[in-house]
Amino acid sequence: MSKKNLKDEAIELHRSYSGKIEVVSKMEITSEEDLSLVYTPGVADVCKAIADNPVEVDKLTSRGNMVAVVTDGTAVLGLGDIGPKAALPVMEGKSLLFKKFAGIDAFPICLDTKDVEEIINIIKALAPTFGGINLEDIAAPRCFEIEKRLKQELDIPVFHDDQHGTAIVVLAGLLNALKVVKKSYKKIKIVVNGAGAAGIAISELLLYAGFKDITLVSLEGIVTKGEKWLNPMQEKMAEKTNLRGVKGSLEEAVAGADVFIGVSGPGALKPHHIKKMNEKAIVFAMANPIPEIYPEEALEAGAAVVGTGRSDYPNQVNNLLAFPGIFKGALEAKARDITMEMKLAASYAIADAVSEQELKADYVIPKALDQRVAEIVANSVRKIAIKEKKTRSSVS
Amino acid sequence: MSKKNLKDEAIELHRSYSGKIEVVSKMEITSEEDLSLVYTPGVADVCKAIADNPVEVDKLTSRGNMVAVVTDGTAVLGLGDIGPKAALPVMEGKSLLFKKFAGIDAFPICLDTKDVEEIINIIKALAPTFGGINLEDIAAPRCFEIEKRLKQELDIPVFHDDQHGTAIVVLAGLLNALKVVKKSYKKIKIVVNGAGAAGIAISELLLYAGFKDITLVSLEGIVTKGEKWLNPMQEKMAEKTNLRGVKGSLEEAVAGADVFIGVSGPGALKPHHIKKMNEKAIVFAMANPIPEIYPEEALEAGAAVVGTGRSDYPNQVNNLLAFPGIFKGALEAKARDITMEMKLAASYAIADAVSEQELKADYVIPKALDQRVAEIVANSVRKIAIKEKKTRSSVS
Repeated sequence: MSKKNLKDEAIELHRSYSGKIEVVSKMEITSEEDLSLVYTPGVADVCKAIADNPVEVDKLTSRGNMVAVVTDGTAVLGLGDIGPKAALPVMEGKSLLFKKFAGIDAFPICLDTKDVEEIINIIKALAPTFGGINLEDIAAPRCFEIEKRLKQELDIPVFHDDQHGTAIVVLAGLLNALKVVKKSYKKIKIVVNGAGAAGIAISELLLYAGFKDITLVSLEGIVTKGEKWLNPMQEKMAEKTNLRGVKGSLEEAVAGADVFIGVSGPGALKPHHIKKMNEKAIVFAMANPIPEIYPEEALEAGAAVVGTGRSDYPNQVNNLLAFPGIFKGALEAKARDITMEMKLAASYAIADAVSEQELKADYVIPKALDQRVAEIVANSVRKIAIKEKKTRSSVS
Repeated sequence: MSKKNLKDEAIELHRSYSGKIEVVSKMEITSEEDLSLVYTPGVADVCKAIADNPVEVDKLTSRGNMVAVVTDGTAVLGLGDIGPKAALPVMEGKSLLFKKFAGIDAFPICLDTKDVEEIINIIKALAPTFGGINLEDIAAPRCFEIEKRLKQELDIPVFHDDQHGTAIVVLAGLLNALKVVKKSYKKIKIVVNGAGAAGIAISELLLYAGFKDITLVSLEGIVTKGEKWLNPMQEKMAEKTNLRGVKGSLEEAVAGADVFIGVSGPGALKPHHIKKMNEKAIVFAMANPIPEIYPEEALEAGAAVVGTGRSDYPNQVNNLLAFPGIFKGALEAKARDITMEMKLAASYAIADAVSEQELKADYVIPKALDQRVAEIVANSVRKIAIKEKKTRSSVS
């Protein structure tokens, strides 16, 4: 399909259906008796049951399986700050993916405000309706504060997919890629190019997973203690990354590295960069739609495993492998949070969805539409969530 | 079905389905190509189309047919302030009635705040997602301010159903009841018992419809200029009602009246009250589940036409006859408001849904489940909305 056709076809499809989601009844109402059960007078007893015992809300209403997909429309896809109305098609798309891949009901909430405190207060006020909050396409650095505060102040799972969804799938791909190139996680050197929300979340998860040598690179250069251009999140990362104290730009960072992870811009990685990397380099070039380097070029330059964000190349890093299963596991376990341990479990589950027999350089990540993955992820996440709840309750 | 059984059955039904609504996709996603149209990369062009021309949001997303059913859980059914979580079963019920009777997608929003300014700001911030706002079960007097401000500050229809839905159906029933008893609207005297949100909205709509002699009665007595206990809304009503300056209680108000409209409490109207009313009295006793007077008693005392809020008696005053068609007409016309003229049109449409042949004392209001009514109401409301838009644009 040519680009022109894709555009026309996408707009035509959206117009002919008037959008992508609808709200439907789970049950039939055909008689006065049905009406008296789902609405007045019968519904009053259901309300009273919840008023008497609020945890019943997740069993007697759709809340326990209902996720809000919340954005302020400030960082939509690669389009930037296009506003909450223009963001709605993406949020509706996300909603239907939640339903298709995890059976979760998800509803788009596009907020007409960019004020951090107001966004936090609105989401808190909406919590009686939702069992979980999926933050989406909110620009950095506001997304950090919003997620942090909501995790502290709400007792339902909160997850900023642009950060953690990407991080989880990258780690899954990396775990499998290391098996392919037969390198141990202990010794490898990793470069993360792009020090925004996704790059920082990836670095955090890799550190949590046990990787030690990570160099984070922004457009200004390598994130290092003392640089004047660091924002607060980058300053925090400077404490935990670049342990060898390399200074300079991407050029210097990639020298002797084993892994390149790009969440930056089109064409940011050149063949001569790959030639400076160690043998059997692993390259995840996730800028979309034009990657940091095209797979053909990267392989030609000597990379052993290459992934991108695109569906028309092997090893697509697609959040779709993570968020449906993460929320499914968290909701089923009635988790109050999505923890680092749950994210790690999701990464291992995604990696394990590729069998040893199937594993090869151009298949380290399952296909985005692989229907098995959400269930596999949900099972792992649920187990961890239940274990963590038990630990917490035995401690407190 | 006994009361005990209804309670158990309602709770069991809600538990077995885990609530009543789900969010589903309008279209199939089975291939990578489908995914590239409903989600990335194709969805980006849909977003851009809306960013370029914001009115497209109602055509390219579900927004144009999506209504928020918003409550703060402070006046839920007859249960009072049971909180937002316990209110959710009612809002879910309302959502599925919107879908069944008007094909409208409606989503419950139960807010964890009672602050008027905060509720207004949240609803305004949610507007990019919704084509209309149905306020529900918000206690007086806050509901007045919230509705008034939102009508001023939003360019989508806002409707507090507890006020206006009831008013519209009462007026419809009254129009038909007057035909049955062969009285002209010009001369009749009306008592509205209950001076809260519903009673005031009923009085306002009756005045707008051309009725002149209305006496509004609260628990403290007849709403009259100078009474110390009047709240601001009642003070406003004292200017327009009780033109004969009757003082006292319900006892004094009903003497010589033709119509009793009760939105008060169980047993508030006694047989001796009806005996003081004019011949062929019309009684709408809508306290729920126990009316101001039971129909058998009212008829025995001399009433000619009796309606209640109950489905097991004739002439049920049920908002379900109004809100689906009102919103359907307003959304189809892309109305920016729900005006008095649109409400009046809805009342006449509901009244006309009972044919001259069918019309009789125990059938002045269509059955709540009469599937024809929403369409009839929508057609009338849409016509008025389009006419008003033309008038406005020719004026401006």
